[in-house]
Amino acid sequence: MNRRIVGQTDATKVPRYAGLATFARLPTEAEAPEFDVAIVGVPFDAGVTYRPGARFGPSAVRQASRLLRPYHPASGTSPFDSLQVVDLGDIAASPFSIEDALASIQQGLAAVLATGARFVAIGGDHTIALPALRAVSAKHGPVALVHFDAHLDTWDTYFGEPYTHGTPFRRASEEGLLDHEASVHVGIRGSLYSAGDLADDGGMGFLIFGTDDVAERGPSAIAAEIRARIGPRPLYVSVDIDVLDPAHAPGTGTPEIGGLTSRELVTMLRKIRGLNVVGCDVVEVSPAYDHAEITAVAAANIVYEMLTLFVPVT
Amino acid sequence: MNRRIVGQTDATKVPRYAGLATFARLPTEAEAPEFDVAIVGVPFDAGVTYRPGARFGPSAVRQASRLLRPYHPASGTSPFDSLQVVDLGDIAASPFSIEDALASIQQGLAAVLATGARFVAIGGDHTIALPALRAVSAKHGPVALVHFDAHLDTWDTYFGEPYTHGTPFRRASEEGLLDHEASVHVGIRGSLYSAGDLADDGGMGFLIFGTDDVAERGPSAIAAEIRARIGPRPLYVSVDIDVLDPAHAPGTGTPEIGGLTSRELVTMLRKIRGLNVVGCDVVEVSPAYDHAEITAVAAANIVYEMLTLFVPVT
Amino acid sequence: MNRRIVGQTDATKVPRYAGLATFARLPTEAEAPEFDVAIVGVPFDAGVTYRPGARFGPSAVRQASRLLRPYHPASGTSPFDSLQVVDLGDIAASPFSIEDALASIQQGLAAVLATGARFVAIGGDHTIALPALRAVSAKHGPVALVHFDAHLDTWDTYFGEPYTHGTPFRRASEEGLLDHEASVHVGIRGSLYSAGDLADDGGMGFLIFGTDDVAERGPSAIAAEIRARIGPRPLYVSVDIDVLDPAHAPGTGTPEIGGLTSRELVTMLRKIRGLNVVGCDVVEVSPAYDHAEITAVAAANIVYEMLTLFVPVT
Amino acid sequence: MNRRIVGQTDATKVPRYAGLATFARLPTEAEAPEFDVAIVGVPFDAGVTYRPGARFGPSAVRQASRLLRPYHPASGTSPFDSLQVVDLGDIAASPFSIEDALASIQQGLAAVLATGARFVAIGGDHTIALPALRAVSAKHGPVALVHFDAHLDTWDTYFGEPYTHGTPFRRASEEGLLDHEASVHVGIRGSLYSAGDLADDGGMGFLIFGTDDVAERGPSAIAAEIRARIGPRPLYVSVDIDVLDPAHAPGTGTPEIGGLTSRELVTMLRKIRGLNVVGCDVVEVSPAYDHAEITAVAAANIVYEMLTLFVPVT
Amino acid sequence: MNRRIVGQTDATKVPRYAGLATFARLPTEAEAPEFDVAIVGVPFDAGVTYRPGARFGPSAVRQASRLLRPYHPASGTSPFDSLQVVDLGDIAASPFSIEDALASIQQGLAAVLATGARFVAIGGDHTIALPALRAVSAKHGPVALVHFDAHLDTWDTYFGEPYTHGTPFRRASEEGLLDHEASVHVGIRGSLYSAGDLADDGGMGFLIFGTDDVAERGPSAIAAEIRARIGPRPLYVSVDIDVLDPAHAPGTGTPEIGGLTSRELVTMLRKIRGLNVVGCDVVEVSPAYDHAEITAVAAANIVYEMLTLFVPVT
Amino acid sequence: MNRRIVGQTDATKVPRYAGLATFARLPTEAEAPEFDVAIVGVPFDAGVTYRPGARFGPSAVRQASRLLRPYHPASGTSPFDSLQVVDLGDIAASPFSIEDALASIQQGLAAVLATGARFVAIGGDHTIALPALRAVSAKHGPVALVHFDAHLDTWDTYFGEPYTHGTPFRRASEEGLLDHEASVHVGIRGSLYSAGDLADDGGMGFLIFGTDDVAERGPSAIAAEIRARIGPRPLYVSVDIDVLDPAHAPGTGTPEIGGLTSRELVTMLRKIRGLNVVGCDVVEVSPAYDHAEITAVAAANIVYEMLTLFVPVT
Repeated sequence: MNRRIVGQTDATKVPRYAGLATFARLPTEAEAPEFDVAIVGVPFDAGVTYRPGARFGPSAVRQASRLLRPYHPASGTSPFDSLQVVDLGDIAASPFSIEDALASIQQGLAAVLATGARFVAIGGDHTIALPALRAVSAKHGPVALVHFDAHLDTWDTYFGEPYTHGTPFRRASEEGLLDHEASVHVGIRGSLYSAGDLADDGGMGFLIFGTDDVAERGPSAIAAEIRARIGPRPLYVSVDIDVLDPAHAPGTGTPEIGGLTSRELVTMLRKIRGLNVVGCDVVEVSPAYDHAEITAVAAANIVYEMLTLFVPVT
Repeated sequence: MNRRIVGQTDATKVPRYAGLATFARLPTEAEAPEFDVAIVGVPFDAGVTYRPGARFGPSAVRQASRLLRPYHPASGTSPFDSLQVVDLGDIAASPFSIEDALASIQQGLAAVLATGARFVAIGGDHTIALPALRAVSAKHGPVALVHFDAHLDTWDTYFGEPYTHGTPFRRASEEGLLDHEASVHVGIRGSLYSAGDLADDGGMGFLIFGTDDVAERGPSAIAAEIRARIGPRPLYVSVDIDVLDPAHAPGTGTPEIGGLTSRELVTMLRKIRGLNVVGCDVVEVSPAYDHAEITAVAAANIVYEMLTLFVPVT
Repeated sequence: MNRRIVGQTDATKVPRYAGLATFARLPTEAEAPEFDVAIVGVPFDAGVTYRPGARFGPSAVRQASRLLRPYHPASGTSPFDSLQVVDLGDIAASPFSIEDALASIQQGLAAVLATGARFVAIGGDHTIALPALRAVSAKHGPVALVHFDAHLDTWDTYFGEPYTHGTPFRRASEEGLLDHEASVHVGIRGSLYSAGDLADDGGMGFLIFGTDDVAERGPSAIAAEIRARIGPRPLYVSVDIDVLDPAHAPGTGTPEIGGLTSRELVTMLRKIRGLNVVGCDVVEVSPAYDHAEITAVAAANIVYEMLTLFVPVT
Repeated sequence: MNRRIVGQTDATKVPRYAGLATFARLPTEAEAPEFDVAIVGVPFDAGVTYRPGARFGPSAVRQASRLLRPYHPASGTSPFDSLQVVDLGDIAASPFSIEDALASIQQGLAAVLATGARFVAIGGDHTIALPALRAVSAKHGPVALVHFDAHLDTWDTYFGEPYTHGTPFRRASEEGLLDHEASVHVGIRGSLYSAGDLADDGGMGFLIFGTDDVAERGPSAIAAEIRARIGPRPLYVSVDIDVLDPAHAPGTGTPEIGGLTSRELVTMLRKIRGLNVVGCDVVEVSPAYDHAEITAVAAANIVYEMLTLFVPVT
Repeated sequence: MNRRIVGQTDATKVPRYAGLATFARLPTEAEAPEFDVAIVGVPFDAGVTYRPGARFGPSAVRQASRLLRPYHPASGTSPFDSLQVVDLGDIAASPFSIEDALASIQQGLAAVLATGARFVAIGGDHTIALPALRAVSAKHGPVALVHFDAHLDTWDTYFGEPYTHGTPFRRASEEGLLDHEASVHVGIRGSLYSAGDLADDGGMGFLIFGTDDVAERGPSAIAAEIRARIGPRPLYVSVDIDVLDPAHAPGTGTPEIGGLTSRELVTMLRKIRGLNVVGCDVVEVSPAYDHAEITAVAAANIVYEMLTLFVPVT
Repeated sequence: MNRRIVGQTDATKVPRYAGLATFARLPTEAEAPEFDVAIVGVPFDAGVTYRPGARFGPSAVRQASRLLRPYHPASGTSPFDSLQVVDLGDIAASPFSIEDALASIQQGLAAVLATGARFVAIGGDHTIALPALRAVSAKHGPVALVHFDAHLDTWDTYFGEPYTHGTPFRRASEEGLLDHEASVHVGIRGSLYSAGDLADDGGMGFLIFGTDDVAERGPSAIAAEIRARIGPRPLYVSVDIDVLDPAHAPGTGTPEIGGLTSRELVTMLRKIRGLNVVGCDVVEVSPAYDHAEITAVAAANIVYEMLTLFVPVT
């Protein structure tokens, strides 16, 4: 490929705290109209059931991503050199109509996929995973899912509303967007509404790795099992930031104690590199509850880890 | 009346930081089933256009109201002795459907009015003023309105949605809920979408007292003019906490600098005592943005001032 | 039993952020006058030696407990269905006289026990464990103690005062409230006044599992050893929230680094289920030092774990 | 006097953020054993009825006082040049026994007065004004009082305790420490327990200037009236930081809206210069509730203003 | 002019919390290469003497400026319609060499002026006013200065360094950049190093309007006097955010109590419209000390007020 | 030795929150002119590349150290009894000239070493390690280094500046201050500028133990390997607080997720006791980003652990 890749603003010429806050100080579409991977903000939080505020997630994660440097030593990759990554800005989604918003988000992400690029979506609440999966599945058919979260997000309805941040994967399952042989939840913990929640979830084909499993078996073993289960299938990776313990991610809407450390999460993400990732999201960063940007920094680093998943293993 | 009034939990027997957080440590309906004035929480914030979080307003205002004592020296009244005030708890409103929520809120407040009592509603975002006005107007006909706010809230639609926190008074005007001879905005300031915003607002019969007017003429003079305009009409009083300067009320969604001090606002409320107040609300407290409860304490005190407005002038 | 159990307010009808803040949205005594387990707030912090503020612990923990759901998957129990749990509100304790406060607290908890119910007390500072143990021991005789804390709390006096948050278990030992064969501290760490602190503590019969022990042997092994030591004795469980690392529980008065993760603590609590728990407390949540409610959420979950300890193992 | 005055650490040689945090970077007693005015910390807060934490007031105010410079332009004085001011550190007062603490504080301040020096005490809660007045009155006889506060602090008892932060001036009045012809409250506002509170207070001879009086008549007029009332009497000045509006002083225990601005307070303090001030206190700074040190910075500046009151008018 | 002006992103199509954070959601230079006024960030804070952090000022002010709407009712102007305003991003300035940074900043701003446009610079600390004045003066000759600040900023050196945030206007005066007949400080207050500070300042020709002057005479009268003094001269307006009281602007480095309200400042800015403003800055926003963005929101609004100063009076 | 050691202020006589904030309430040099170990503050942060503020580190760490008690159970030592430890206050370093500051810091620390004492320096940013190593090496020759940090700090220049917080160990290496056979980094993680960063670092002789190594092999094994590598060489220990995970240390300038727990760090420090430690630093505490003092408490405890390293193993 002769295309010259536009990377980050050079931190030796422009301090990292300076300049407009694109993700990781990467180019906009205007600066790099052809791209391999798009960072897309999805500032939508009308699907939340408790603390709102994830609509400010994309801007907070971008601001926190100023600290990212180009070389990723754990993988030995330089994702901003290997891939043209751009920050496409945000998808405009109505804060008042969940259905309108779902349509806008699906359309926006489908447009990215139509260029041949892949995406990392920054939420917004977890409702956005449904239109993302619709877009991805329209291209790839039913996809495998690796879902890091404290919660199953396969509840049914809430106040009669079928589309909320607690239901995307039930809807996705019903709509045939997921490969039922190859979908896993990781990091599940916390109280449920009833034992039926687990039964329903299992009935949709999900395999659950709870935080206790991660603690007892170690993140590498869990990642290995995930790899084996997914195989070469097209894979969507969704990280609800509340999969991290509140100590690591206070800035979120429905915190649950006993969560993963950021080290455990990052290890698992690194150990699934080589799978056929076709799209990703990081959701539920609610900056008004954050402190010293620690949640947003975690999310920015998770996006960065996801970008390395798109770099071919050589 | 022989009914024995149940007042606050006695602070000399139970410390003010102790006990369940009803407003001002007042009784629940179970403890005082007949009442003159109801405090009603309306935890709804799906109508906001910028920072959400006012769904946590009622619980924060209740917690901050623990400091209130029974005697109000400026008016020489003891509202909890003169009136049976109860905390009715919150109206359950869907976070996902604005229309469903409006119906629930209207119904809940109409039920209060049906008992013969009056209410102070604690929001929640300003959308809730519309169902409150529908309930009040169903009983009293078109009412006068004294609306303290940084913003006009007479915008039309936003993302196609007619019912948001920026539109309640346009809708109320269109629905004939307001007395066009007797409706005023107080504390208006900040940037607008266009000069037409003011023209539209004036077309609906509103009189505007901006913060500059309050600063130049003084709160007493403004209050006197309001009194003269309203006269004996049934009056609804709505306070958006952002009428206060962000220094006094940081915990809100759309802050505008150059606002009222809490002293100015309280003075105006005290100087309109004697008008025929039939209902009130205090809205837009967003606790995640508050500090040291100062916004919630302000809101709790405004509710307290409103309660004194219900005490007959003798 | 034919009694119909009143559980949580239904979250599908009333959003979890709505309604008065009883613990876990459970009924008050008025709503469920017969009960198996009582949640009792004890807002007392006059016994603290460093940062005060735990008097606001009960209200903060209640507010944070809104997130709790009825099914506890790790134990497969639904404590709010198996047991009638009520929130009794707070015990009124003088902030000015430690001795008066101790008497009020003991009396309040003894009254709960007199109904045949058991309790989880929410502090308040750790001083409250002494009157709690007096009440429990008056009914059950000397009890076993599992005490999770960064500190021994077996110091003697401070400024001549025998009853402070650093001394409850020395006083309890002296008063014969504890079974010296069956009392353990878990999570101890941090600097001491002298080597004699440990000697004194050992002389009272306590066994210590430090955080290093938990780290090296794992929480399950520690729990197994505790189970073996306690056996069928009546057991009191006391959790000072500072047993957690400051990362997990910043909102407390005397933080010590190197603490437990919430995952480790929860695992140990789950692994002692089946022991004969007769009373519990969670203390030292100081909300003014908390952030995004993470300490209060942790405490609320610990209370929830304690409730599962009361559910019979079938 | 030939004594060479030791002033602040030189900010052109040691940055203001450096060095041990004595008040205004002034010398300790070891560095300036003879002195005219002593800054004395009184970290005691066992007398509070709502939010505790003023025990950390002295250290927070010292840290915030690093910004003070030596020349006070409004008065044209250089208090650290005209007077030898030292930071005597803190009086050790029991956190567990109010009576013991009162004795320690009285003794500590009497010792300062015995050297011929005057003092500014930094609280701590307002309880400390009583032992301060006892010490001052023992030397000067009944003194005039200018008391800036949101609250009267002439309540009687609370939970049977006569010595709390709500009662110092009633006790002082009863003990004959105050000149009943020359005692004023300034900045009073907020709800009371009953109309009797005002009657009782008046019965003790206090004159009240409420915040409304300050707003309507202006701080200069109020100060002039105070000057006239006090005349040449020995005067004690007590500032509860909650006399400021919560916008200006969030870091305090019992905030009341509608308070003074720092500008109004400073103006009144400046306009009473020339009165015969024999002692001062600044109390109720509770740092856990402060933000960006604004409350502590205000308190540090008030101490500084008080120091200028000790500089003879020439 | 036939050029089509590109205004803000349409808030009815893209929610205000969405999209990349340019100032007020205005176009970048790429989107509007010809412009009348440039917003330029200058993230430099190596000149501060107390709390650093203003390097994050530009990004915080941009984020806070999302709330600005296009119509400014007080002036009846729509600055984004009348003028092409662009956000040029930030000037890259070394954090390690003050002199290098000054050169970069001067060069960057001179380049803006060379296009014929005017600018509003967002600091950064007040050091940046010197290179700004060098650039402006190179074009216009010595300029009048209206300087809003708590501090004179005409100190000489600090630790031997001539170029700091406390010295820009002394250096500017020495370099002949200022018109000595037409330079004023507004809002001055707080302690000084010596009486000589004022004498030195007066010797440089500055006129001082202290906060007390503003309080006593009112902002309109002060503005009128400023207008008269400046006349038709080219004018530079510099606002140190600490001219506001810490209640209104906690997020700054050297707070001084007794400051202006945002209402007073805005009134003065509005009342000098019509003067020949050639450049502006807003400096010393230090976001790590801000709360709920209130300081950044104030700064964003001040920038907006400055933009209206560039709109011709018709 | 007959010298009588002056230890901490007695916490049973003076509450720990009282008194001037020397480190751990230890004596100043005036109170203990002969000493074995000096605590020295180095409030310098002009070398930072991202978030500044470590200039306030020494005062925050001192305030947080009030909680330290005299007996260290893990080592069975009482460092304040075995050694005369004093708090020397802060070294005055220019905030404007890195080179001047380096000279002042080196001179200050050399003066400590010249007395025969050793030191623990509290930063300030990591730049200060260079003058510390210059001082130590001038006395001991090239020293071994154990460097706990998320970052290598062996970068070359930044904006042309050779002396920053990212470069001290490259400069130290170039200047021959380090023993290349015996220098290790511990806790490294996060993104780099290029693969060459690691190659350069290795070329300077450093051995790296990343956080993954610590996680996989355990802190004891890592400490054992460090001990073996260092042997009897004179050793300098440098702890950048960002070696801790942001959950444990939010108050720092360049946070990286996936870090050490405080338990892991403390374990490693304890396990290297017995090595020949000649000097230490703890750097990069930036209090404006801290919460509830958790970062400062961690740093204070790390200083305490370092002090035990100076106690001879008997």
